[in-house]
Amino acid sequence: MSDIAQVTVAGVQFAPVVGDATESLARIDAGVREAVRRGAQIIVLPELANSGYMFAGVEELRAAAQPCDGAYVRYLIETASSLGIVIASGFAELDKVDDVYNSAVIVDRNGVRAVYRKAHLWNAEKTCGFRAGRGHPPVVDTEYGRLGLMICYDLEFPEWVRAAALDGAELVCAPVNWPLYPRPDGERPGEIIRVQADAAVNRMYIAAADRVGPERGQDWLGGTVIVDPDGYPVTSILLGSEHIAVATIDLAMARDKSISPQNNVHTDRRPELYGRKTWEFE
Amino acid sequence: MSDIAQVTVAGVQFAPVVGDATESLARIDAGVREAVRRGAQIIVLPELANSGYMFAGVEELRAAAQPCDGAYVRYLIETASSLGIVIASGFAELDKVDDVYNSAVIVDRNGVRAVYRKAHLWNAEKTCGFRAGRGHPPVVDTEYGRLGLMICYDLEFPEWVRAAALDGAELVCAPVNWPLYPRPDGERPGEIIRVQADAAVNRMYIAAADRVGPERGQDWLGGTVIVDPDGYPVTSILLGSEHIAVATIDLAMARDKSISPQNNVHTDRRPELYGRKTWEFE
Repeated sequence: MSDIAQVTVAGVQFAPVVGDATESLARIDAGVREAVRRGAQIIVLPELANSGYMFAGVEELRAAAQPCDGAYVRYLIETASSLGIVIASGFAELDKVDDVYNSAVIVDRNGVRAVYRKAHLWNAEKTCGFRAGRGHPPVVDTEYGRLGLMICYDLEFPEWVRAAALDGAELVCAPVNWPLYPRPDGERPGEIIRVQADAAVNRMYIAAADRVGPERGQDWLGGTVIVDPDGYPVTSILLGSEHIAVATIDLAMARDKSISPQNNVHTDRRPELYGRKTWEFE
Repeated sequence: MSDIAQVTVAGVQFAPVVGDATESLARIDAGVREAVRRGAQIIVLPELANSGYMFAGVEELRAAAQPCDGAYVRYLIETASSLGIVIASGFAELDKVDDVYNSAVIVDRNGVRAVYRKAHLWNAEKTCGFRAGRGHPPVVDTEYGRLGLMICYDLEFPEWVRAAALDGAELVCAPVNWPLYPRPDGERPGEIIRVQADAAVNRMYIAAADRVGPERGQDWLGGTVIVDPDGYPVTSILLGSEHIAVATIDLAMARDKSISPQNNVHTDRRPELYGRKTWEFE
């Protein structure tokens, strides 16, 4: 638990350019600097922000992958240090034994504070060369609060979100790449609905930073949003448009899990019942 | 898993009258018959449908509580038998050792098919005389599909919803009494948002039947909704109004958990990671 209260958070929604790391990095840098001009202290970038997503195959992915001490993460650390901010970003990670992960980092002036490897892989990620992560979502204390970290499809597994919440995450930083799907007229995209529920049932903030496209025939939702512990968005949702969603949030709200005089979303859990089947009537 | 496909489901949203069981039952009976006229084969009634919710104290609650073979459940069985339907309803249950539970039943022509005692109690339920349930949410095969059963605040615990889903629930029947809370302009109530997420992450239907009020100073949301496995409502939401929400749904949709060529919301779970903390980096 931190004692930080008000912090300003930004999600940078932009279009990475698959196969053009230089251009992608230029767009990231422009977005980060604009977010800082708008007061951001914590900046969340999309999943695979520096590489794009629609790899032509295993070779293109491996060529784009970098180690945790590679050029992209070094850029993030230098930028976080010089601007006095915290950055969370997705990137394709090449580990020491030559495996590739769909990873994310949290960095600050002290360097890499957390690395996370996506545990729940989406569709072609399973066949284009990514290995699935095996570690829990990290939760780390920073000068701007206690931050959790997970990636895109992970958010669809309430067990995983709960794990970060029970470890005390006040704000979950979630790099995402949400593919665009049809939905009923007038409905908010389901991906955002599920982030709202994830936040509310744990009374914590979630900042999901999405990308826009199109990219090699794939369209993206562009659903960047910051959701509060009541489960409601505190930023505008500009589907499909490049933009930076910025909100000043009160982390103290995420440390109070009570929702009525006699209810608390975490202590009301019945973990003794969840693990095994106990029938009241047999 | 059933092989039932299309079934018609109704959620009856009405105002029980606390302290007047005769009037409450008359309203239930009118609602059930109107739902059947509109084609309903499965009817979901609210939490504590026959008693109302705002008990003045322990005595009033105990006076309203009935055993599982009491008059109210007998009425439900007779009605289900004569009309050829399945009914799920909340009621205050008095058990054989004189404990009182916030319970729900599923009944059909064969009698009581499932009894469930609310495991996650809301606010004054903890002090007005209810004991918390200790059994898993039941999942039972009926002639209209495989049905799960849980009550109101239970829906805020994704672990509990998951338990019913992993047991094969195609439709979760959820009697609820959602108190009315303020929310940001233009936002759908969080209770409905969370039902949408519960349904989508498990690809099953959920029918939540809510009440309207007011009752002894408490206002109610009146948020009855049936949500499909994509997580979108398939009924109109008429907040605060007496009405019957009816939809014909395709249970086959709830038996297919796949969401991409390589993804399945249940088999993509990583239960080996959920139970213990494994850090990728130590």
